[in-house]
Amino acid sequence: MSAVPADVQTPEVLIDRDILGRNIDRMATAVLAKGIDLRPHVKTHKMPEIASLQLAAGAVGLTVATIGEAEVFVQHGARDVFIAYPLWVTPHHARRLAQLGSVARVAVGTDSVEAAQAMGAALSNLTGSIEVMVEIDSGHHRSGVRPSHAVEVAESATAAGLRVSGVFTFPGHSYAPGMPVKAAEQEHLALQEAVSLLRRAGFDISRISGGSTPTAALAGRSAANEVRPGVYVFGDAQQLELGRCTLDEIALTVAATVVSRHEGEGSTPRRCVLDAGSKIIGSDRPAWASGFGRLLDHPGARISALSEHHATVIWPDDSELPALGTRLRVIPNHVCLTMNLVDEATVVSDGTAVARWSVDARGKNK
Amino acid sequence: MSAVPADVQTPEVLIDRDILGRNIDRMATAVLAKGIDLRPHVKTHKMPEIASLQLAAGAVGLTVATIGEAEVFVQHGARDVFIAYPLWVTPHHARRLAQLGSVARVAVGTDSVEAAQAMGAALSNLTGSIEVMVEIDSGHHRSGVRPSHAVEVAESATAAGLRVSGVFTFPGHSYAPGMPVKAAEQEHLALQEAVSLLRRAGFDISRISGGSTPTAALAGRSAANEVRPGVYVFGDAQQLELGRCTLDEIALTVAATVVSRHEGEGSTPRRCVLDAGSKIIGSDRPAWASGFGRLLDHPGARISALSEHHATVIWPDDSELPALGTRLRVIPNHVCLTMNLVDEATVVSDGTAVARWSVDARGKNK
Repeated sequence: MSAVPADVQTPEVLIDRDILGRNIDRMATAVLAKGIDLRPHVKTHKMPEIASLQLAAGAVGLTVATIGEAEVFVQHGARDVFIAYPLWVTPHHARRLAQLGSVARVAVGTDSVEAAQAMGAALSNLTGSIEVMVEIDSGHHRSGVRPSHAVEVAESATAAGLRVSGVFTFPGHSYAPGMPVKAAEQEHLALQEAVSLLRRAGFDISRISGGSTPTAALAGRSAANEVRPGVYVFGDAQQLELGRCTLDEIALTVAATVVSRHEGEGSTPRRCVLDAGSKIIGSDRPAWASGFGRLLDHPGARISALSEHHATVIWPDDSELPALGTRLRVIPNHVCLTMNLVDEATVVSDGTAVARWSVDARGKNK
Repeated sequence: MSAVPADVQTPEVLIDRDILGRNIDRMATAVLAKGIDLRPHVKTHKMPEIASLQLAAGAVGLTVATIGEAEVFVQHGARDVFIAYPLWVTPHHARRLAQLGSVARVAVGTDSVEAAQAMGAALSNLTGSIEVMVEIDSGHHRSGVRPSHAVEVAESATAAGLRVSGVFTFPGHSYAPGMPVKAAEQEHLALQEAVSLLRRAGFDISRISGGSTPTAALAGRSAANEVRPGVYVFGDAQQLELGRCTLDEIALTVAATVVSRHEGEGSTPRRCVLDAGSKIIGSDRPAWASGFGRLLDHPGARISALSEHHATVIWPDDSELPALGTRLRVIPNHVCLTMNLVDEATVVSDGTAVARWSVDARGKNK
């Protein structure tokens, strides 16, 4: 990615179209070569333009987190969406799901007998077919049932009039150093056990969905026949520090300007301050991360603190502090949060701004 | 604050109008009783409705973080705004500042000779009067010069044709346990030293601006004649855990629904999962905080993890896990980030939704 185009005002989210295209193709090639389906999670980018590129590269459909996201992407032409979330379905949600189901193939997650019953009851008098995917906990310990409980959830869904078509899991514990391989193995075992029990109980399980960006492209056995990576389109500082992407695969940065610089004296650190803070970068910071993001062209710099409109950058001792007014590019820790903070992003190619893309699903939390 | 109104879909930001009004009046009364000016920071709420309430309660003007925020509030009638940020002013910024300066009193921060020179040069051929406030580092070590450097910055601003009307500091290091009193004392000393040096150098310093929600209402000496608290309108989990507000002063919560619950077995924790994650609550989490926010009606619960659309809540052993579908209210750690994630919020009074207010300055990072 080349320098910040002169006509861009900071702070601004920049998407490098060429790197984006390569990332989309590389993941599609790797996943399809394993004979499994790619259903990318579009909560990462929330942009219809990027979803279209993913579908054109061979994705079978899209994954979303909310009904609101599903509505945006179906409105833009998606015809196969999976809401990978254990929805608590009230009559309000049922009406929206039925509307979606009347124009697209729609699957929804569930992880309890009660939620399956509530969903079945709310949908019972509506048309529009909704498939159910049982969520399995493969070690992340967020939502999802243990594999041994999958059958009782599936049976309650069937009894409530719903069709169970598969299982899914999110190995979120893969987002830590040394964890991707272990998490991928746990994901395999959990999905395998759940599917085996469900099939023994007579369920026709066609979709077995797993995967995250850290685990999706890993070699080795997997019970999944579908994966749902999201972050791979852009890469971010978390993936970089986990070794799951390289610097030249970073497609999204936040352009920022040095507004304050201090050589440091006594207990005050040598630092510069950028005009991009948590209100555009996002403030996710896992304990193992080196800071609140990285600088694309200054691998030795560390973002030690993030206020709403300031990033404090501790500069390496062996290199000169950048001049005031210098424009730098920040690699956010977690791009999914960055994209949820802007209404539009600037698309660049060869150092030139070539388009503005709208983040149509920003803020669709419901 | 009473229960989540039945007609509200989750997740949703709720603002209790009655508590909000009391918070606004209490801070205004406390600050005005000390004979100093209140210039609330409206980056917290980004809502013209709340700014109007603050001005009606006696605020002399508003504080904002960006030119874009200033534009929104001036458009809604504000006539005295301070951009409390060390702007790097290009011709693009200068045109916008001059436009603002033609309809309102506008002050801008600076913390270096170079930034003052750049601002003066960019503004030199434009009409519209802009005042300069020199930013002082009182111990937070973000932006701001040490008091001993204030005169050289002020002199460069004057030489560049700008009018220096005061100094300001942000004691951000007050956001830690045991720190408010110490930070308030450091703020006093830093402002006092800078003002004394500037006056000795012949500057007519009329505005001495300090204060944050943790320090603004503290008793004791202060060199400031103006304070800029922001969070006090809503309160949040950080202020609660710092002892700077009480539970019945919490005016903003995020209404959320229990979508998953697990009694826990072996190494898997007893927990429930809410449908509000970092994309509506915000993911700020200082090391000293108990988690990623609190629950208003369940002080013993702890938000141990926040994904984009899930809050994982570890439930106290001595109390029953809430049923699926239960609606709870989350107190975010940092309300300024929460308000930047939604386009509107629901205003409640006596348990009833009475209005929807627009977050007009959301995303105005430039």
